[in-house]
Amino acid sequence: MSSNPIRTAVLGFGYWGPHMARNISQIPGFELCAIIDSSSIRRSVAEKLYPSASMFTSLEDALQNVELDAVVIATPAHTHFDLGMQAIKYGLHAIIEKPLTTSVTQARTMVKRAAQKSLVFMVDHTYVYSPAVSRMKEYVDTGYLGELIYFDSTRVNLGLFQPDISVLWDLAVHDLAILHHITGRHPSGVSASGGRHINAKHEAAAFLTLYFDDLFFAHINVSWLSPLKIRRTVLSGKQHTILFDDMIPDEKIRIYEVGVDQDENSLLHYRLGGVEIPKIVNSEALRNELEHFRDCIQSGLTPQTSAETSLGIIATLESAQQSMDDHGSMITVPTLDALLL
Amino acid sequence: MSSNPIRTAVLGFGYWGPHMARNISQIPGFELCAIIDSSSIRRSVAEKLYPSASMFTSLEDALQNVELDAVVIATPAHTHFDLGMQAIKYGLHAIIEKPLTTSVTQARTMVKRAAQKSLVFMVDHTYVYSPAVSRMKEYVDTGYLGELIYFDSTRVNLGLFQPDISVLWDLAVHDLAILHHITGRHPSGVSASGGRHINAKHEAAAFLTLYFDDLFFAHINVSWLSPLKIRRTVLSGKQHTILFDDMIPDEKIRIYEVGVDQDENSLLHYRLGGVEIPKIVNSEALRNELEHFRDCIQSGLTPQTSAETSLGIIATLESAQQSMDDHGSMITVPTLDALLL
Amino acid sequence: MSSNPIRTAVLGFGYWGPHMARNISQIPGFELCAIIDSSSIRRSVAEKLYPSASMFTSLEDALQNVELDAVVIATPAHTHFDLGMQAIKYGLHAIIEKPLTTSVTQARTMVKRAAQKSLVFMVDHTYVYSPAVSRMKEYVDTGYLGELIYFDSTRVNLGLFQPDISVLWDLAVHDLAILHHITGRHPSGVSASGGRHINAKHEAAAFLTLYFDDLFFAHINVSWLSPLKIRRTVLSGKQHTILFDDMIPDEKIRIYEVGVDQDENSLLHYRLGGVEIPKIVNSEALRNELEHFRDCIQSGLTPQTSAETSLGIIATLESAQQSMDDHGSMITVPTLDALLL
Amino acid sequence: MSSNPIRTAVLGFGYWGPHMARNISQIPGFELCAIIDSSSIRRSVAEKLYPSASMFTSLEDALQNVELDAVVIATPAHTHFDLGMQAIKYGLHAIIEKPLTTSVTQARTMVKRAAQKSLVFMVDHTYVYSPAVSRMKEYVDTGYLGELIYFDSTRVNLGLFQPDISVLWDLAVHDLAILHHITGRHPSGVSASGGRHINAKHEAAAFLTLYFDDLFFAHINVSWLSPLKIRRTVLSGKQHTILFDDMIPDEKIRIYEVGVDQDENSLLHYRLGGVEIPKIVNSEALRNELEHFRDCIQSGLTPQTSAETSLGIIATLESAQQSMDDHGSMITVPTLDALLL
Repeated sequence: MSSNPIRTAVLGFGYWGPHMARNISQIPGFELCAIIDSSSIRRSVAEKLYPSASMFTSLEDALQNVELDAVVIATPAHTHFDLGMQAIKYGLHAIIEKPLTTSVTQARTMVKRAAQKSLVFMVDHTYVYSPAVSRMKEYVDTGYLGELIYFDSTRVNLGLFQPDISVLWDLAVHDLAILHHITGRHPSGVSASGGRHINAKHEAAAFLTLYFDDLFFAHINVSWLSPLKIRRTVLSGKQHTILFDDMIPDEKIRIYEVGVDQDENSLLHYRLGGVEIPKIVNSEALRNELEHFRDCIQSGLTPQTSAETSLGIIATLESAQQSMDDHGSMITVPTLDALLL
Repeated sequence: MSSNPIRTAVLGFGYWGPHMARNISQIPGFELCAIIDSSSIRRSVAEKLYPSASMFTSLEDALQNVELDAVVIATPAHTHFDLGMQAIKYGLHAIIEKPLTTSVTQARTMVKRAAQKSLVFMVDHTYVYSPAVSRMKEYVDTGYLGELIYFDSTRVNLGLFQPDISVLWDLAVHDLAILHHITGRHPSGVSASGGRHINAKHEAAAFLTLYFDDLFFAHINVSWLSPLKIRRTVLSGKQHTILFDDMIPDEKIRIYEVGVDQDENSLLHYRLGGVEIPKIVNSEALRNELEHFRDCIQSGLTPQTSAETSLGIIATLESAQQSMDDHGSMITVPTLDALLL
Repeated sequence: MSSNPIRTAVLGFGYWGPHMARNISQIPGFELCAIIDSSSIRRSVAEKLYPSASMFTSLEDALQNVELDAVVIATPAHTHFDLGMQAIKYGLHAIIEKPLTTSVTQARTMVKRAAQKSLVFMVDHTYVYSPAVSRMKEYVDTGYLGELIYFDSTRVNLGLFQPDISVLWDLAVHDLAILHHITGRHPSGVSASGGRHINAKHEAAAFLTLYFDDLFFAHINVSWLSPLKIRRTVLSGKQHTILFDDMIPDEKIRIYEVGVDQDENSLLHYRLGGVEIPKIVNSEALRNELEHFRDCIQSGLTPQTSAETSLGIIATLESAQQSMDDHGSMITVPTLDALLL
Repeated sequence: MSSNPIRTAVLGFGYWGPHMARNISQIPGFELCAIIDSSSIRRSVAEKLYPSASMFTSLEDALQNVELDAVVIATPAHTHFDLGMQAIKYGLHAIIEKPLTTSVTQARTMVKRAAQKSLVFMVDHTYVYSPAVSRMKEYVDTGYLGELIYFDSTRVNLGLFQPDISVLWDLAVHDLAILHHITGRHPSGVSASGGRHINAKHEAAAFLTLYFDDLFFAHINVSWLSPLKIRRTVLSGKQHTILFDDMIPDEKIRIYEVGVDQDENSLLHYRLGGVEIPKIVNSEALRNELEHFRDCIQSGLTPQTSAETSLGIIATLESAQQSMDDHGSMITVPTLDALLL
C-alpha cells in the first residue's frame, strides 16, 4: 500500500455525507482533509465531529486551501454533473452518489471526459458491496443457480418524497445496479408504468419490466407509498432460486432448490426441495465500497461500479421514464457500445 | 326459505368440483342430485362420497334422467362457453368457475343470453366471499380509508403450469375480482408485461398496471414461478392503508394509520401511526358464495359476482393479454356499457 | 397383508373420535364396524357420515352385536382405565388417546394385564408419527446433532380449559412423548411449577425442568393462557441444533450449525454457521399412526408408542404434578424397570 | 437546569462503557471529564474518541487530577462493590451497570451507606427506560390490562458465556427489572432450575418461576445456548394481554383483546378479539436513562431504578441461585423491608 494517504474531501454533509465522512476518517489509506457544504449549520456539525478536517463552502474554495487527491460527491442528484465535471477538471478521483446524473447526455459526457484523464470515476451503488449481494453473485458465477430465468425485486416503504425526481431514480436505481452486477447484463428494452400521490408531481410508485435478448426477464416494483417495508429480490435459475430479503438481519439470503419436471402428459410441474440459509459474515457495505475505491486509486484498476457501468443504468432509467410517460410502451435501451461511440 | 330444495348438478369433478359438491351437499336449500364427469375414475370417487346423487357423463344425459334447477360448472375454462350456453338453453341457474370464458366475445354472448332468460348467472370469484375481503370492502364503504390512492397485489407461488392459458387468466383474475368488488371500479386502460418459463408456451409471470379515470392506480404481480408463496394485497387511501395477507392465518388484515404531511418547505412526508388487526370470524368463502347463489335463486336478486360484472374482468384480462403481446403498450379497456350495447 | 380386515370400533365421537373414524374408514386393512358414544346427537352425526358402521351406546353393547378385533378409545382421560381394562378383558387390540391414564397405578395395572394377553396396546401420541418428529429422530440417530445438550419446548396458546386436569396432562404429555421418542431417554427427576387462572381449579400454565443422569437437561413450558400460539421445540447437540416450529407450514424444521469454541483465555464462545431447512414430505400424522397400529396387529410387533413406553410418561407427569404441588421441589421419577417390577 | 455541568467519569471502557461515554458526551448537562480503564489499549481507543477527556488507570488517580461529581461504573460485576463503595466514600453520584452486586450482603451495605450520604445511587437497568417498557407500564397503570394474571419472559440467544456468573445474573436480571418496574411487585418466593453446557462451570440456561402473595405468577426462561434469538415478554391481565417482542423493530408491542367466558356448563373459554399495535416513538433507552440520572442529581429525586429497588432484584437472584442449587425447591425471597432493617 502506498505510504501517502489519499487526501479526500467530502462534498455534501446532508443525509449520506456523514456516513461517507465517517468511513473516510476510519479507513486506513484515506485522510479526511475537507468537508464542503453550503450550509453553515451542517458545517458546524461536521466540524465538531472532525476537528482535524477543514470546512469549506465550495470545491473551488477547498482546492485553494488544501491539497486533494479525491472527492466524495454526496449532494443532490441534479448537482452531480457540474460537480463531477469540476472534479475531473481538477484531476480528482471521484465517487459520486447514485444516480450518477439525471440524464444520459450528462452521464456520457462525464464518462468520456473522465476516461481521457485516467481518473478513478466510481458511482456509489452501495448495495453492490454488501456481503449479501456479493454472495448472490458467487452463486450465479459458479453456475449454482443454473440458466437464469427471472429477477423480481420489490423495494417499497414509506419513503421521503423526493421533490425533484420520481421514485424510479431514487429506488429502482438500486435494483438495476444489483441486477447488472450479479448477472452482468443490461436490458434491451423496458416497459414501465407508475402512479403519483395526489399531492405530488412525480411518480411515487413505479413498475418496470425489463426485456433481454433471450427469455430472461426482470420486474422491479418500487414505491414510497407502502406502510409495509419490503426489500426483497428473487433471482431464479433452472437449478436454484435465491431470495434476498434485506429485512431479515441474520438470514438475508435463502437458496431454494427448485426444479421443473415434465410429467407423462408433457405438463410442467415445479418441484420444491430444501432451503439453505448460508452464514454471511456481516460487514458494512459502504466501508467495503470505499476500500474498493481506495484500492482502485492505488492500483489503477477499474471499479466494479464504474461510471461507465453506471451509464448503462442511467440509460435504463431514462428509457423507463419515457415508457412511463407513454403508459408502458416498450422503449429500446441503447447498448453501452452505442452510448460510448 | 322456499320449501323445495334447489336441485343441483355439479359439472366437473376434478380439482374444484369436489369442493363444490361438498358444499352443495351440506348447505340447506340445495339438493345435490347429479355429478357429471367424463372420467369413470372420477365418477366412481364421487359416487362413493355421494351415494344419493346420480352420476352422468354429460349435462344432456343428466337432464334426461333427473330434474334440475341449477348447475355448478367446474370444468376447464375453454369449456365454459358451451356448457354455460347449454345451461341457459335448458333454463338452469348456473355458477361458473372463473374465468367465465376465455374471450370477451363469448362472455358477451353468454351474458346477454342469460339476461333474456331471467336466470341467476353467477361467476365463482371465491375471494369476494371471504371474510377478509368483505371486511376490506366495509373499510372502503364506510370511508375509513379515505380517498383511494392505489392498489398493489402480489399473488405468486410455485404453481401448476396451466397448459392452455397464461398465469393472467389463472391468477390475476382473482385480483381483478377483489379490486372490482372492493372499489366498484373497472380500469380504463391496462399496460401488461410478462415472462415465460423456458419450456412453456404461455406467460408464467405477469405484471399489470391498471389506469383509471383519475389518479388512482393499480398493480398486479402474478406468477407460477416463485418458491416463496405470497398472497398480499395493499389498498391505500388518504387516511388509512389496508394490508391483506392471506398467508397469516389469524391476522389476515392489518390497517395502518398513515397520513401525508406537508412541511414548511412544501415537501411531502409520510407519517405512520399505529396498526390495528381486527378480529375476523372465520368462515369458508365457498360456502358463503354458494349460500349467496341459493339466496339469489330464491329471491331473484342479482349476485355480487354476476356474469355481467365478470364480463368487465374478462375484458380487462383480454386487454392485458393484448398489451402483454405488445410488450406493455397501454390498451384501452372497453366500458361495461359499451360491452353490453 | 392379511386378507381379513381388522374389525374396529371407535369409542367416543367427541373432538378426536371423528378424526380417528375418518382414518379408520379410509386406511386399507381396517373395517370401521362400530361407533360407540353415549350421546344420541353425536351418534346421529356419526351415522350420517358412516352409514355402514353400527352405532352403540357402550362397548359391551357393541360386542354383543358385532365381531370386533380392535378398539380406538377416544373418550375423556378419566375413563381410559375402565375402558382399556374392558378392551383387554375382551381380547381387543387397543389404541388409547393420550394421556393413557390419570395415574401411574392405573397405567401399571393396564400395561401388565395387556402384556399377559399379547395384545397390541398402543397410546395415541400423535406427534411421534408426524413427518417432522420422525425427521428429528433421524438427525439424532445418525449422530448429526452430536452429543445432546438440551431440549426446550414451548407449547402455548389460548386453549380450552380442561375441567378435570391441569395443562400438564393435556399439553406437556406431547412434549414428553416427543422427547422420549427422539432421545430414547426418561428423566430421572423433575421440578415443576405452574399457575392457575383466577377462575380455575387446575394449573393453566406449567413449567417443567427435567433432570437426567448426565448434564443433558430439558425444559417444557405449556399454557392455555397465551394469545400467541407457539409450538416450538429446540433440541441442541454439540454439532447442530434443531428447531421444530410446528406453526410454519412448509418449514417446520431448521437445522442450525452451531459450535462452541474456546478462545485463548479459555472463554467459551458460540459460533453460528448456516441453516438448513430440509424438505419434508407432508403426511397426516394420525394416518401414519393408525397404519402403524394396523402393522403391529398384523405382525405382532411392539408399537413405537406402546403403553409400556407411555407408562414412563405418566410417571413423569405424576412426579411433575407432585413437584408442582410442592412449588418446585425435585421429585425423583421412577425408572421403567422399577415401575414394571 | 443548573448552569454547572455534572463532571462525570466513565469507569470501564470495555463492552458497555463506550456506549455510556458516548451518551455522557452528548447529553446536555454532563461533562465527560475522565475515562478510567486499566487497559492501555482501551484507554488509547477512548482517547481518540474523546480527546477532551482525561484518561486514568484508577478512580483514585482520576480524583487526584480532576474534579468529579459523578461516576458511571461499567466494569465487571465482581468489582461493583469495591468501586461503588469508593464512589460513596468520595461523595460521587453513581450509576452502576447491572447487576448491582453479586450478593445481597454487598448490595445492602452499599444501599445503606449511600442513603447516609444523600447521593443519587442508581442501577443501569436499561430496559426500564426503553420506550416499549414505558408504554407497557402505562397500560398497566391505567388499568387497561385489568387484574394481572401472569408474566412470561423468554430471553435466549447464543450468548457470550460469562466466566464468573451464571446466565441468571447476566440475563434474568433484565426480566426481573422489567417485571418490577411494570408491576411494582417483588416476588415472595422463587423456584429455579437450569442447566450447564458440557464445558462450563455455571448455568448457561435457567428457568425461574416466581410466586407472589396472590394468584399472579411469573416465569422467566433465559439462555446463552439458543441459536434462535428470542426477546419476548408476555404480560397478561383479565382484560388485555401485552406481548413485547424486542426483535420486531417497528412493532415491539402488541395488545391482544382477550377475555375469559364461562359457558352454560361452567367451563372456561378464552375469547380472542382484535390486536392493536401502537406507534411507539423510538428513542435510545440508555440516553433516556442517563437523562433521568442527570435529572435526579439536579433535583434530588429518587431514580426509578434506585439501588434500593435493585436490592430487591439481587435478593431474588440470590434466592433463585439457591433454588437452582437445590434443583428447584422454592426459596422465600426476603422483603425489601426486611432487607433494609
